[in-house]
Amino acid sequence: MFSNDDLSSLRWDPVANTVEIIDQTLLPHTLRWVHLDSLEAYCHAIVHMQVRGAPLIGVTAAFGLAHAVARDPSDQSLRSACDALLATRPTAVNLRWALEQVCAEIQPLLPWARAEAALNKALDLRSGDIHSCSLIGDNGLALLQDLYAGRTLNVMTHCNAGWLATIQWGTALAPIYKAHAAGMPVHVWVSETRPRNQGVNLSAWELQQAGVQCTVVADNSCGQLMRSGQVDCVIVGSDRTAANGDVCNKVGTYLKALAARDNEIPFYVALPESTIDWRCPDGDAIPIEQRDAAEVLSVAGVDAAGQALEVNVAAVGTRALNPAFDVTPAGLVSALVTEHGVFAASAAALETLRLQLDR
Amino acid sequence: MFSNDDLSSLRWDPVANTVEIIDQTLLPHTLRWVHLDSLEAYCHAIVHMQVRGAPLIGVTAAFGLAHAVARDPSDQSLRSACDALLATRPTAVNLRWALEQVCAEIQPLLPWARAEAALNKALDLRSGDIHSCSLIGDNGLALLQDLYAGRTLNVMTHCNAGWLATIQWGTALAPIYKAHAAGMPVHVWVSETRPRNQGVNLSAWELQQAGVQCTVVADNSCGQLMRSGQVDCVIVGSDRTAANGDVCNKVGTYLKALAARDNEIPFYVALPESTIDWRCPDGDAIPIEQRDAAEVLSVAGVDAAGQALEVNVAAVGTRALNPAFDVTPAGLVSALVTEHGVFAASAAALETLRLQLDR
Repeated sequence: MFSNDDLSSLRWDPVANTVEIIDQTLLPHTLRWVHLDSLEAYCHAIVHMQVRGAPLIGVTAAFGLAHAVARDPSDQSLRSACDALLATRPTAVNLRWALEQVCAEIQPLLPWARAEAALNKALDLRSGDIHSCSLIGDNGLALLQDLYAGRTLNVMTHCNAGWLATIQWGTALAPIYKAHAAGMPVHVWVSETRPRNQGVNLSAWELQQAGVQCTVVADNSCGQLMRSGQVDCVIVGSDRTAANGDVCNKVGTYLKALAARDNEIPFYVALPESTIDWRCPDGDAIPIEQRDAAEVLSVAGVDAAGQALEVNVAAVGTRALNPAFDVTPAGLVSALVTEHGVFAASAAALETLRLQLDR
Repeated sequence: MFSNDDLSSLRWDPVANTVEIIDQTLLPHTLRWVHLDSLEAYCHAIVHMQVRGAPLIGVTAAFGLAHAVARDPSDQSLRSACDALLATRPTAVNLRWALEQVCAEIQPLLPWARAEAALNKALDLRSGDIHSCSLIGDNGLALLQDLYAGRTLNVMTHCNAGWLATIQWGTALAPIYKAHAAGMPVHVWVSETRPRNQGVNLSAWELQQAGVQCTVVADNSCGQLMRSGQVDCVIVGSDRTAANGDVCNKVGTYLKALAARDNEIPFYVALPESTIDWRCPDGDAIPIEQRDAAEVLSVAGVDAAGQALEVNVAAVGTRALNPAFDVTPAGLVSALVTEHGVFAASAAALETLRLQLDR
């Protein structure tokens, strides 16, 4: 039986009062837990992407702030710790949000009361994220159960939206873990997700840790797999969801959505409420981050002895372009799976959700 | 001015009576010409994929047979050379066809007359392929001219269907070289083409040799580029074309065709008549070759010092699947560009071509 408690990207030891994270830069070749025992260690972990994924970054930063406040609860210490943590990933919305949550909780308190309150808030954020992901998993499980026809269910995913990107469960992978836990035979097609290979490096690894069957394929193969009847549904995550249901996610998502529609395969997007940008009318309003071309021109891995190294694939002087995300129009999305339930990818359905949240 | 004579994958020196090929396994990092001076060298070049691409394999084998016959024109020598060359790539249809062409020419002759006849036939096959590709280029150029609106034309391609896969010009890249030669400003989006990276390794290199502007992108980025208006048309090759116009080509082609349709971008397939399988009714009848999973799990390149090496991307024990081709339904193909003209991708249009060829 699958116990999701063993599968977490960030461990809190209540006795020793310490936080440990998986150094994700070493995956899938080495599993190394790193003790975060100074503000510098927290900052280093975020800057160097030992932790990545919006929810995990936010929770890590909250623990980092709690750590700093435990050492020195003064206003000045609080401010400088916030500044240091914010500077690690300047564009990470979730990081700022998590720090603001902790600050709002402890700023009104006298210094002697702040350490415990900050830690409790970090723990709240952690368990809140686990709870949200678990609900996404439950809601997505119902969709998988509808598709289940007594033989192994083949689910395709893209990039990594699993427990390595959150604290536990994940978003896109949560329904799969729930299905596995419920005894449903499930197999996952893991798209390698060039150029950074998060599929093969992270998703394949974390599914294997959980005992879920999976097979890695080149991103190019996904259309052929769908056309030949080897895919029952696609589930991906979302980095940002527009108010009309357009989804901005890791580049390549749109191509999978097109192939899913052409083959009448359900295409689900799993996302926490926090990725919905209510002020963003549609996908065309979402700027696409351009990352370093070097990510396209070289590949990281290990040699036969397990030694980490990087190879250049292209000739010296080759030009490359590296848009990191793409937009999948709402019309290609079969459903949005959130912690609040399953919604159509449409302005009307999301407005219903918004009103429900405002209540 | 672009001279296509300098850009050839197989050189024939009429004075020294020697054949040289580019060792394509070393591209794009090293350009090494290899003298083929024994039947073993010809076989080695084909087996180890120093030459690849159906037309180039066929012509190389024809020269290999001519070489063997020049040493020993007996029936026995002819048979054993044919057997050795055929065994190099047992499933390569074009290889068998080229050898049959040479044999048909020389078997009726007395041994003393065979060497010259075999060499002449190999030279005929070589110039025939160059001529076909040049015609494909001319016919495709007319399509590009229709799209040209006074600013740089952005053409996307996949895999390598250029002069490295043929003798000169190529198929998919021939119209681009013709456009460049005609002074049209053209820029090529080169999809890296995982898992074997023929786009970044071969297409980007050969375009650069010809002075054509190009930019490498991850296969995943192609949808985003089309959606954001950065692609004017897509041109790819074909490994096998069904009688109804369905196209079997390097895996990932289908995804580009879907994205092109979704964005109303012309999707052209350039192919010589020889890839049309008249007995194949549609794409569903084409078996998809499954290649070694290791190609997905590791990547070849060079280190910072230029030393060739390979890195493992996945964790030990990871499963992978590697379908090498996919089928693009005729309905997604804007036109088939052949040496005989431009045809709709439909059974009716191809039947017209067939009747024209039968005459």
